[in-house]
Amino acid sequence: MHLSELPTPAAVVDHDVLRRNCDTMATRLATQGIALRPHVKTHKCPEIARLQGGQGIAVSTVAEVQGFAAAGFEDQVLAVPLAPARIPEVLALARRLSLAVLVDDGAVAAALARAAAEAGQRLSVWIKVDCGYHRAGVDPEGAEVLALARQLQDDAHLDLAGLLTHAGHSYDCVDRGGITQVAEQEARVTVRCAERLRAADVAVPQVSIGSTPTLSVTVDRTGVTEGRPGNYVFHDLHQAGIQSCELGDIALSVVATVIGRYRSRGTLVLDAGALALSKDPGPSHLGGAQEGGRICRLDGTPVPGLRLTGLSQEHGKVSVDPACPEPGLAVGDRVRILPNHSCLVSALHPQLHVVRRDRVVDRWQPVRGW
Amino acid sequence: MHLSELPTPAAVVDHDVLRRNCDTMATRLATQGIALRPHVKTHKCPEIARLQGGQGIAVSTVAEVQGFAAAGFEDQVLAVPLAPARIPEVLALARRLSLAVLVDDGAVAAALARAAAEAGQRLSVWIKVDCGYHRAGVDPEGAEVLALARQLQDDAHLDLAGLLTHAGHSYDCVDRGGITQVAEQEARVTVRCAERLRAADVAVPQVSIGSTPTLSVTVDRTGVTEGRPGNYVFHDLHQAGIQSCELGDIALSVVATVIGRYRSRGTLVLDAGALALSKDPGPSHLGGAQEGGRICRLDGTPVPGLRLTGLSQEHGKVSVDPACPEPGLAVGDRVRILPNHSCLVSALHPQLHVVRRDRVVDRWQPVRGW
Repeated sequence: MHLSELPTPAAVVDHDVLRRNCDTMATRLATQGIALRPHVKTHKCPEIARLQGGQGIAVSTVAEVQGFAAAGFEDQVLAVPLAPARIPEVLALARRLSLAVLVDDGAVAAALARAAAEAGQRLSVWIKVDCGYHRAGVDPEGAEVLALARQLQDDAHLDLAGLLTHAGHSYDCVDRGGITQVAEQEARVTVRCAERLRAADVAVPQVSIGSTPTLSVTVDRTGVTEGRPGNYVFHDLHQAGIQSCELGDIALSVVATVIGRYRSRGTLVLDAGALALSKDPGPSHLGGAQEGGRICRLDGTPVPGLRLTGLSQEHGKVSVDPACPEPGLAVGDRVRILPNHSCLVSALHPQLHVVRRDRVVDRWQPVRGW
Repeated sequence: MHLSELPTPAAVVDHDVLRRNCDTMATRLATQGIALRPHVKTHKCPEIARLQGGQGIAVSTVAEVQGFAAAGFEDQVLAVPLAPARIPEVLALARRLSLAVLVDDGAVAAALARAAAEAGQRLSVWIKVDCGYHRAGVDPEGAEVLALARQLQDDAHLDLAGLLTHAGHSYDCVDRGGITQVAEQEARVTVRCAERLRAADVAVPQVSIGSTPTLSVTVDRTGVTEGRPGNYVFHDLHQAGIQSCELGDIALSVVATVIGRYRSRGTLVLDAGALALSKDPGPSHLGGAQEGGRICRLDGTPVPGLRLTGLSQEHGKVSVDPACPEPGLAVGDRVRILPNHSCLVSALHPQLHVVRRDRVVDRWQPVRGW
C-alpha cells in the first residue's frame, strides 16, 4: 500500500529513521561503556524493542510487563513507583521472568518484603532517587535513601539492584548547553549517592540513569552502569526544539486528510484532532509551539504558513497565513504532521503503520491499558 | 467489586448521575419540541446511547458508525465533514442502515453524487453551516450555501436532509449569560439560513443544532427540529466552569492511586498521568484551571490544597498546599479525579467501569479508532 492510500488519521513510523535512531543511541551508549535498557513506554511495540537491542527493557505499566513478557522479553524493570495494590500481580509475573521494580517509600518496600516472604520469592528492587526533576524519587543527599537501602539490603526476600533516576527536567532546557548541565547533574548526583551508600557498607550493584535529552549528549558518566532512554526511537518536536535531535530524526508522524477548506476565513480543517495528536502543547517554554504539531506534505516537506491553531476531538483547525504562498491544498489532500510529543501520540493509535519511503510495509499493535 | 478495589488508573462512570443527565436533557428537548439526536462521540458506548434515547445518533468516525451499527443503531449521522477517500466505506454502510453524512464543500458533494450514482444508491446529506464557531461549515449568509443546497436538491442520488450546525464557541463563554447569547445565535442564524433557502425554492426538511452548553439553556428555537448534544452525559470541569452544569452533574471520573508522597518537597505523585487524564487544559480562559482535573476523595469530597501541577505519561504530580489541612494521603490511598474534558478522557481508557454508589456494577467497552 502507498502512504497516500492509508485511511486517515494514521500514525506512521518511518522505518529507516527509526532504525537509525536505534543504532545511534546504541552506539552512543556502547562508546561510553554504559548498558542500554530502552524504555519501551514510548512505543509499546515488541517489534521496536527488538530493533533497540540492549539488556532488557524498562516499562511503565503492568500491562506493558504482560505484553512484552508474552513477546519474549524476559528482563524487565517496571520503572514507575509501584502502587501497593499491584504487588500480587508483580510477584506473579516475577515468577515467570526477571522483573525488577522500583521503590522510593519505606512502607512500600516493607509491603513488598511481606508479600515476597509470603510467596516464598525473592524480588529485585531499585531505589528511585531524585536527581533534580522533583517528580518521584528520594533525596539522594538525605537520610531516607540510606535507611531505604539498608532496609532492602537487610531483607531476606528483596535484593537491592541499584539506584535509578530520570532527569525529566532536561525537557525544560532550551539548548544542548542546558541539556549538558542537566546530564552532568544526573550522573554526578546519582553516582555520588551510590558512593555514599557504599561507604556505609551498602552494596549498590548498578546506577541507572536516563532521559532522551541527557543521553543525546556525552558527559563524564564514570560510575553509571545503565541508560534508559525512551523517546529517542521516534523523537518529536519537543526534542528537536530543545536540540536533543534534528527535525530529520523524527520517525513518527500522523497522516491526515484535509476535510475542509474555508478560503473566506483563511482556514483549513484536518481529520486529525486531539484523539490523533494529543493535546500536548509541545515545547511551549521555547515560544512558537503550536497545538498538535507541524504540518508537512506527505513527502515531509514543511508547508509554510500553515499553523494548527485548535484541536477539538476529531478536527484539527489550521490557519493559512495569507502572506505565504497559497498552500494549494484542497479537500481530500493529505498532509503529514510532526507531533509535539510522540509518546502520547503513539499511545492514541490502535496501530502504527510502518513505512519505507512511501510504502506501507508493516503494521504494529502497541500494548494498551494499565 | 468495591470502587476501592479497581486496578488504577480506572475511568469510572456514576450510573445514577449519568442516568439523571440523560433524563434531564431528554426532558429539556422534549419540552421545547425538539427531537434529540445524541452525539455519541463523548462515550462511544452503545449502552450509554441506549440510556440517552432520541431519534438515532450522531457519530464522529467511520469506526463509530460500524460499532454502533453492530450494536443495532440503524439511524446515524456522521457529523464530521467527510474525507473523500472514505466515501466507498460510507456508501457500503449506507446500504445496511440509515446513514446520513454532512458536506460543506461542493467538490465533495459532487464526488458523493458520482459515487452514489455508480453504486445505484441514494444518500441523505446535511449541509454544515457555520453559526459563529468558525471551525467547519459554510457561511450561512453567503452565496455558497445556496449553491450547495441547489446542487444537492438537483442531484438524482443525493437528498438534502437539512442544515446542521454546532456552536462550539459556547465553550469559550464564562457564564450562562454568555451561553444564552451563543444559543440564540446558533438557532437564529441557522433557522434564518433555512428560511432563505426555502425562499429560493429549496426544500430544507430539518434544522439541527447542538452543543451541550447551548442546549443547557432554553431560548427561542422556533424552526429548529433537532438537537445533538454530546458531552452532557458525563459533563466535566469545563462544563461546570462555564456554568453549563453543576459539579455534582459530572458522571465521569478517574480513580488513581497515590504512588509517591514527598513531604520535604510538598508533593504527591498519582498513577494517573497524561494517558489517563489527557493533556486537555480545561477551561483555561476562566483562570484557575489545573492540569488533569480536580482531586477528590473516593466518595467525591474535594481535598483542599491538592493541585495537579504536572502530567507526564503515567505520573500525575500533585502539589500539597502547606496552608491547608494535611490531606492525610499515604502511598496506596486512592483518589478520584474530576476530568477537565470527559470526551478525551473516556477515549483514553480501554473500558469504563460503571458504579452505583461505591459498587462496580458493569464494564462498558467503547468503540476505538477511526
